[in-house]
Amino acid sequence: MSTEVSNNGVIFTKAINLGIPEIDKHFKYIKRKIKISPDVLEKDEILVRNVYLSLDPHLRNLMRSDYNLVEPFIEGNVMKASGIGIVVYSNNDQWKEGDVFLGWEEYSKISPDEAKNGLFFKKYLKEAKNDGNSLSYFLGILGMTGFTAYVGLYVFAKPKKDETIFISAAAGAVGQVLGQISKINGLRVIGSAGSDTKVDYLLKELKFDDAFNYKKINTDQALKETCPNGIDIYFDNVGGETLDIALTHLNVKARVISCGMISQYNSTTKYGVKNLSVLVSKRITIYGMLIFDHYEEHYDSFQKEMIPWLKEGKLKYKEHVVNGIENAPQAFLNIFNGKNFGKVVIKINDL
Amino acid sequence: MSTEVSNNGVIFTKAINLGIPEIDKHFKYIKRKIKISPDVLEKDEILVRNVYLSLDPHLRNLMRSDYNLVEPFIEGNVMKASGIGIVVYSNNDQWKEGDVFLGWEEYSKISPDEAKNGLFFKKYLKEAKNDGNSLSYFLGILGMTGFTAYVGLYVFAKPKKDETIFISAAAGAVGQVLGQISKINGLRVIGSAGSDTKVDYLLKELKFDDAFNYKKINTDQALKETCPNGIDIYFDNVGGETLDIALTHLNVKARVISCGMISQYNSTTKYGVKNLSVLVSKRITIYGMLIFDHYEEHYDSFQKEMIPWLKEGKLKYKEHVVNGIENAPQAFLNIFNGKNFGKVVIKINDL
Repeated sequence: MSTEVSNNGVIFTKAINLGIPEIDKHFKYIKRKIKISPDVLEKDEILVRNVYLSLDPHLRNLMRSDYNLVEPFIEGNVMKASGIGIVVYSNNDQWKEGDVFLGWEEYSKISPDEAKNGLFFKKYLKEAKNDGNSLSYFLGILGMTGFTAYVGLYVFAKPKKDETIFISAAAGAVGQVLGQISKINGLRVIGSAGSDTKVDYLLKELKFDDAFNYKKINTDQALKETCPNGIDIYFDNVGGETLDIALTHLNVKARVISCGMISQYNSTTKYGVKNLSVLVSKRITIYGMLIFDHYEEHYDSFQKEMIPWLKEGKLKYKEHVVNGIENAPQAFLNIFNGKNFGKVVIKINDL
Repeated sequence: MSTEVSNNGVIFTKAINLGIPEIDKHFKYIKRKIKISPDVLEKDEILVRNVYLSLDPHLRNLMRSDYNLVEPFIEGNVMKASGIGIVVYSNNDQWKEGDVFLGWEEYSKISPDEAKNGLFFKKYLKEAKNDGNSLSYFLGILGMTGFTAYVGLYVFAKPKKDETIFISAAAGAVGQVLGQISKINGLRVIGSAGSDTKVDYLLKELKFDDAFNYKKINTDQALKETCPNGIDIYFDNVGGETLDIALTHLNVKARVISCGMISQYNSTTKYGVKNLSVLVSKRITIYGMLIFDHYEEHYDSFQKEMIPWLKEGKLKYKEHVVNGIENAPQAFLNIFNGKNFGKVVIKINDL
């Protein structure tokens, strides 16, 4: 016996290389139905009822037709993202539930390859349920963005006690976790964010040593005041002018961790960084990183270290939860103008 | 008994932060005499008759008044550089001859501190004399520039066989050594240089796999043709536009070694590098390096590896020797317009 239910979703309608995507031009919200039945599945496929979707800036790259690093989105297909769903039917021995690459829709058929990749996270998700952590945490503080902060700090920056770290987009999904684990490691932590509310949160809730609103204060002046002894680690989430200015405040043997250049993702003209010659005179290393490289080696120790910190209340975590798949395109675009506050997840269904 | 001899030299007359130094404005060649006598020396000083001076681009930084990393040149004092001199008189138990920070003059009084720093090189110089290598080699292929190539390759780039290395300013003091040790390590070696004669030398004498004249061929087009499988290591001696273009040809997990940005040293406007976002998507590391950090740990193994290669004829070496201290300013400025061909040394005196 099978039932038909709604499977509304968001279609990727048109690739865009430069500039800002528009809701009606590049996305299309569609209403449709799906038959909840084992019949819809091929061998080794699974059918998943989507609960949470993770919206992250890097999805913007997959909307480009000239992005040749990983397979971009296909025009006419449903948008995709990491997410957490409940397996409804499985033609795959290894699957009952999990974190996989889901569609921006209510139900997704997961291909055998995607199902195989998702296996890696199964045991962590089980532990999370038993621990009482919201499953959505595995899309943020215990997932890709928290893991980015962890790897950036421990694998690349290799901080020494009392060093100064400057974090741009510090109230964002990566920044807020990074700031807190930097404090745990005895660093002096400075952050920039785009609103007074966010700055207050960094100072009062996350106990940053200092923070500033880059929309109100000139970044060069603010760094002079907040980092009088210079910057040892710059965690760059934005690129562009902020990177250019931060370069001039770096100390000898400083490390720059470049994990995203959100300021450049939608721009039609690229900002030219003028201060790279300090790299030589100050022996600075810039590490470009993508988190996908590091799961196998470091994800286990990340979980083991983070979960006790969460339980002990040493880590706070702010999620920006948006309800309903129909709101995913706007929520995604809001990331680029800073209207989100914390890690953005779409809640599609109740558990 | 003492004699008076000529001690002509070049005075640094005026600091210059931006733009191109001019011979009559920033340097002054002066004729003067010095008494060759132990009387001229304070405790622990030595008096050196200068034989070779090493002219290197980084001296340009020391002509700036706003260069706060190491002590800049002092207006009114003699210009300084690494060099090799013969000790004429010594008030210092540990000195008879050596490679020290000399003045652009015929004789230099070496302060106790400089004499102490120079001790590091004494044993290598002795070995060089016994080996029949010209002492000037210790300012180039066996000295700072050769060592820069060696450290850049082994300590930072960590090459794997069959990788592609692209070297800008490949016929220069660092580039020519780097290209040859890269070939010894089984790399595919591509170089750029600013004249057909230099390109011929790279191809025919140094056996580069490919090379191009960047003044004749567009660098982007040339890299497409000479590096069809992309670049794994970019050794950047120039910065600016060449770096910007090279970034777009880098492979995943490529390494950029930034050991100088000669294109930027004299410029009045700084070039803005627009393609840094590839750092993230391709997980690229940029290492800024200064060779002074590495003598203690690596200079010994450098000497041990290089000297046999030189003896076996595996390494060729082109020096650009200019005779006479009065020609030092022009020879220095020629480095910045590419009129030199190989490592520039000033021969001040015969041995």
